[in-house]
Amino acid sequence: MPFATPSPLRRVFAQRVRAERKRLGISQEELADRAQVHRTFVGAVERAETNISIDNIGRISDALGVNAADLMVSPSE
Amino acid sequence: MPFATPSPLRRVFAQRVRAERKRLGISQEELADRAQVHRTFVGAVERAETNISIDNIGRISDALGVNAADLMVSPSE
Repeated sequence: MPFATPSPLRRVFAQRVRAERKRLGISQEELADRAQVHRTFVGAVERAETNISIDNIGRISDALGVNAADLMVSPSE
Repeated sequence: MPFATPSPLRRVFAQRVRAERKRLGISQEELADRAQVHRTFVGAVERAETNISIDNIGRISDALGVNAADLMVSPSE
């Protein structure tokens, strides 16, 4: 349900993925290529629209070079 | 695919959920009730058989009283 209110954890993850991607200076397409996911998927993740699975969380965190745990905590925490 | 080799992150999550549940001294059924998921689901999660979604990761971590990030890192790390 893309237009339902995203869960707090989804929103944190979305913000953290975007921040780490921008830190690397890569596009959503480049991240999708590195993580071996569909290129529209990264956009949906960064908009907190998709209920991403743990296996894809692992692919995205590996591609960003961070631990999955780092993507579950907002920087202010 | 329940019998495929689980991803490393799935295995860490499975071990951490079981450890935190045992720390609380509650059954899989009790955790399922608290997290508002199906009772067979917790068993599948603890066997790393299910590709759990981020929304359900949030429900499980809330029910265990821990941060989702705490369930993504093995205790030895």
